[in-house]
Amino acid sequence: MLANVYLIKKHEICTPLIYLNSNCRSNYCNIDVTFLGVNIYLKNISAASEMGDSEENEEDQTADNIGEKGERGPGQKHKKIGHRRVDSNTGAVSYKKIPASGLMEALQIGIGHSIGSIAPKATRDILMKDFSELEIVHFPALGTSTTPAHRCKDFIFKTYAPRAFKKFRKEFSIEADDFLVSLCTHRLKELSNPGASGSLFFLSHDDNFIIKTITRKEAIFLQKLLPGYYLNLTQNKKTTLPCFYGSFLYESMGKTIRICIMNNILPSNIKYHEKYDLKGSMYKRQASNKERMKSSPTLKDLDFLEEHPGGLILQPDLYDDLKRTLERDIRVLESFRIMDYSLLLGIHNISVNKQETLKSRKPNLETRPYSDQEIGYDQDYAKQVLDRIGSKRLKDNWKQDDSIPHGGTLAVNERGEKCLIFLGIIDILQSYRYYLYDRFMSHFLRLTIINYYENGE
Amino acid sequence: MLANVYLIKKHEICTPLIYLNSNCRSNYCNIDVTFLGVNIYLKNISAASEMGDSEENEEDQTADNIGEKGERGPGQKHKKIGHRRVDSNTGAVSYKKIPASGLMEALQIGIGHSIGSIAPKATRDILMKDFSELEIVHFPALGTSTTPAHRCKDFIFKTYAPRAFKKFRKEFSIEADDFLVSLCTHRLKELSNPGASGSLFFLSHDDNFIIKTITRKEAIFLQKLLPGYYLNLTQNKKTTLPCFYGSFLYESMGKTIRICIMNNILPSNIKYHEKYDLKGSMYKRQASNKERMKSSPTLKDLDFLEEHPGGLILQPDLYDDLKRTLERDIRVLESFRIMDYSLLLGIHNISVNKQETLKSRKPNLETRPYSDQEIGYDQDYAKQVLDRIGSKRLKDNWKQDDSIPHGGTLAVNERGEKCLIFLGIIDILQSYRYYLYDRFMSHFLRLTIINYYENGE
Repeated sequence: MLANVYLIKKHEICTPLIYLNSNCRSNYCNIDVTFLGVNIYLKNISAASEMGDSEENEEDQTADNIGEKGERGPGQKHKKIGHRRVDSNTGAVSYKKIPASGLMEALQIGIGHSIGSIAPKATRDILMKDFSELEIVHFPALGTSTTPAHRCKDFIFKTYAPRAFKKFRKEFSIEADDFLVSLCTHRLKELSNPGASGSLFFLSHDDNFIIKTITRKEAIFLQKLLPGYYLNLTQNKKTTLPCFYGSFLYESMGKTIRICIMNNILPSNIKYHEKYDLKGSMYKRQASNKERMKSSPTLKDLDFLEEHPGGLILQPDLYDDLKRTLERDIRVLESFRIMDYSLLLGIHNISVNKQETLKSRKPNLETRPYSDQEIGYDQDYAKQVLDRIGSKRLKDNWKQDDSIPHGGTLAVNERGEKCLIFLGIIDILQSYRYYLYDRFMSHFLRLTIINYYENGE
Repeated sequence: MLANVYLIKKHEICTPLIYLNSNCRSNYCNIDVTFLGVNIYLKNISAASEMGDSEENEEDQTADNIGEKGERGPGQKHKKIGHRRVDSNTGAVSYKKIPASGLMEALQIGIGHSIGSIAPKATRDILMKDFSELEIVHFPALGTSTTPAHRCKDFIFKTYAPRAFKKFRKEFSIEADDFLVSLCTHRLKELSNPGASGSLFFLSHDDNFIIKTITRKEAIFLQKLLPGYYLNLTQNKKTTLPCFYGSFLYESMGKTIRICIMNNILPSNIKYHEKYDLKGSMYKRQASNKERMKSSPTLKDLDFLEEHPGGLILQPDLYDDLKRTLERDIRVLESFRIMDYSLLLGIHNISVNKQETLKSRKPNLETRPYSDQEIGYDQDYAKQVLDRIGSKRLKDNWKQDDSIPHGGTLAVNERGEKCLIFLGIIDILQSYRYYLYDRFMSHFLRLTIINYYENGE
C-alpha cells in the first residue's frame, strides 16, 4: 500500500503520510511510529538502561518530494489564511466575513440547545442509521417556543448524528451537564495562532474542549468515518485519535460554517517547554525562523531529532501501552486512507521548570481573554499520576518531585531530565480516497463537457 | 413507519412485518412483540398470579390482505421448491441440480480450509473494511500445495468477511477447533422438511450449527447488514437474532451456491411438543392440514392462540430480560427495514413428557442419516438450568423435577404444565428497502428502454 501512497504523494499531495513500521527489534524497541523513517524515539526505558543508554539512530534518510502546506504570499500572511481574516488595525478576527465573537455566541446557543435536547432522551442501542442522522433547528432572533431569543442574526443550526455523538461522549465519560457548562456558560477563548489551515479555533474556558471550523469535505468525511471511529472506540479504549464530541453546521445570511468539537490535547495550564507536530517526513520538516521566534513555537520532525537525538525514554508499561495504542489507531487511519495527520507532542520539562523562574517565560498557548494566565500545579494530582504508573522503580525515582502537573505521561530525555509528555493524533479528516475521487470526477466531467461542446455529442 | 409498511405489504409483499408494540400496560404486561395485534402471550408470572390468572385477550382483529408464501402447484409440490429438488424415485435431494451429498462434501472442504486458515492469524481490532472483505480460493480436484485433493469437481470457494465472522464467532464463544470438528469431521445431516423457501439446510452432526443456502440478494443484504449486526452484538449480548458464524460462496461448473452458517435454535435432542413460526399476523396464519399431519408440525399464530389462549407464563426476571432483548433486536431489524422475519418458538412440555412413553412418539426434526434418534435428557444440565434461573420461588417449584433437558427457558402454560421454551428470530435476510429499490430500478430501466425504442430518444 505504501508504494501507492508514495506515487500519489509525489505528484499530488503536499504532506507525507505517517505509517507504522512493524519491524520492531525486540531488544531495543523505539516507538515505531516511524514517520517515514524518523523514529519518534520514545524508548523502552528498561531496554535503554540495559544497553547503557547507547543510542542507535537508524534513520532511513529517504527524502521525498513532499512539501509543506502552502502558505500565502507575504503581503497576505497575517490578514487572511483560508477563510480566517484578521483585521490588521483592530485585530478583530472573522471567518467567512462573520465576526468571530458573533459566531461564538451563535454556536454557544446552537450547541446548548442541541446537547440540551438530546441529553434527556432515553439512551438506547446505537444503530447504523444513527451515524447519518441530521437534526435541523431554526433559531430566529426573536426566539420561538423551543428556542431562545438572541442578539445574533437568524440562523439555522444542524446537528450531525446527535445520538451517535451522545454515545461517544458517554464513552469518553463526558457528562452532558459538564459539557454544557464548559462550552456554553462562559465566553470561549479564540486561539490566536491556529496554524496554517485557516481554521478558527475556540477553546472552552476550562480548557477541556476545542471547537474547530472544518471544511465541507472534512465534515462529509467525518460522517463517513463515524461507524469506523465508533468501532475503534469500543475496541481501543485508550485511543490517541481525536475525541470527537460533536459535529455541527451553522448557517446564516447565506454563509455556512461547519464545526466539530474535540478534546484539547495540550491544556494551557501546563507550560510546554517544547511542542512538536510530527509527521514522519524529513523533507522540509523544520520549523521556519518565523515560527521559532514565537514564544511557544510548534517545531517539526527535524527539530525533534536535533533536540532529542536520543529520544525520550518511557517506563516499560507505558511504552508498551502507548505503542499498542498507536499501532491500533494508525491501523484505523490507514484503513480509511487517512493521510496528512500529525502526532502532536507537548513536552513539559519538570527539571528545567524547577530551575527557571516562572516570570521569565510567557505562557504557552496564546489565548484570549486570559492571555497572561499563569501556570499552577495541582499537588494532589501528582500522587495520582504516580499511582497510575505501575512500575515501582520509576515511581521511586519520581517520589522526591513535589511539583508534577497532572495529566500527561512521565518520561526522561537523554540528558536525564524528567519530563511530562502530552500527545495525540490530530488532523485526521483528510482521506486521499476522496481526494482522488474528486479529481477523477472533475476530470471526467471536464472531458465530458469538452467533448459535448467540441464534438456536439 | 408502520403505515408505510402496511401500504407496501398490501400490494407487494406476501407476509407481514413483526413490529413491537410499545404500549405496554404496566400491571399486566404480556410480551409485546405484538405480531400485528396478536400477542405471543409470554406473561409476567407475578403479574399473572396477582390477577388470578385471568386472561385478557385483547386481540386486534385487524386482518390484512397478506397471504402466505406461495406454494407450488400440487403436481410439483414434492419435486421442486425453489432450487431444491427431490427425486421422487430415489429420494435424492439436489440444489441447482447439484446433488446435496456432493455439495455437502465440497462445502466441508471449503469451510474447513477457510476457517483453518483464518484461525491462526493474529487477532486485531475489527475495521469497517473487514465487513466487505472477500477471500477467494480455488479447489482443483487434484489439490494444490495449500488445498487438498478431493473427489468433487473443481470448485471455487469464496469467504465473505472472514475476519469479521471470526470476531463474531469469538463473541459467541465459538472456538475454531470446535467449529471445525462440528462442521467438517462428520457427515452433515440434511433437514428433510426445510420449509417453503426452497433452501437447503444441513445440520452439523452435533446439532449445533445449521448451514443454509441463501439467494444472491440475501447474501448481498447480509453483507450490508454486518456492521449493524456487529453493533448490536457488542451492545446486546443476549440477542435473539440468528447467530451468523460465516457466509460463503461455492462455485462450480457455472453454478453458484451461497450459504451461511447459523446457530440451531431447536436442537434435535429435545422433543418439541409444539413448534410455532410466529409473525404477528392473523391473516392466513394457520398451519395447513398437510402440515398438521406431520409428526412435528410447525404451527402458526392462530394455532398458538387456539392452543394457548392464556399464553405462556414466565418468571419475572426472565420475562424482563427477554422483553428487553426482543425490543432491542426488533429495533435493529426495523432500522434495516427488515421484514418477513419470524419468531421461531419450540415448546418442550415437561409435564406431558413425563406421562407419555417415549416410544409412542417419533423424534422431532426429521433428520438424516439419524432419522430415528431418540431423546435423551442430560441430568447434569437440569441443575445448571435451575442455577441460571434467579428467582428462588420458581426454582423451588421446579426442584422436584428430575428430568429437565438443558437449554431453553422455563415457563408454565395456562394449564399449569411446566414447559421449556426455545426461541429465536429467523429469516432476517429480506429488506423491503432493497425490494423497493429493485422494483424502482427495473421500472425506471423499462421506461427508459421503451422510451428509447418507441420515441427514438
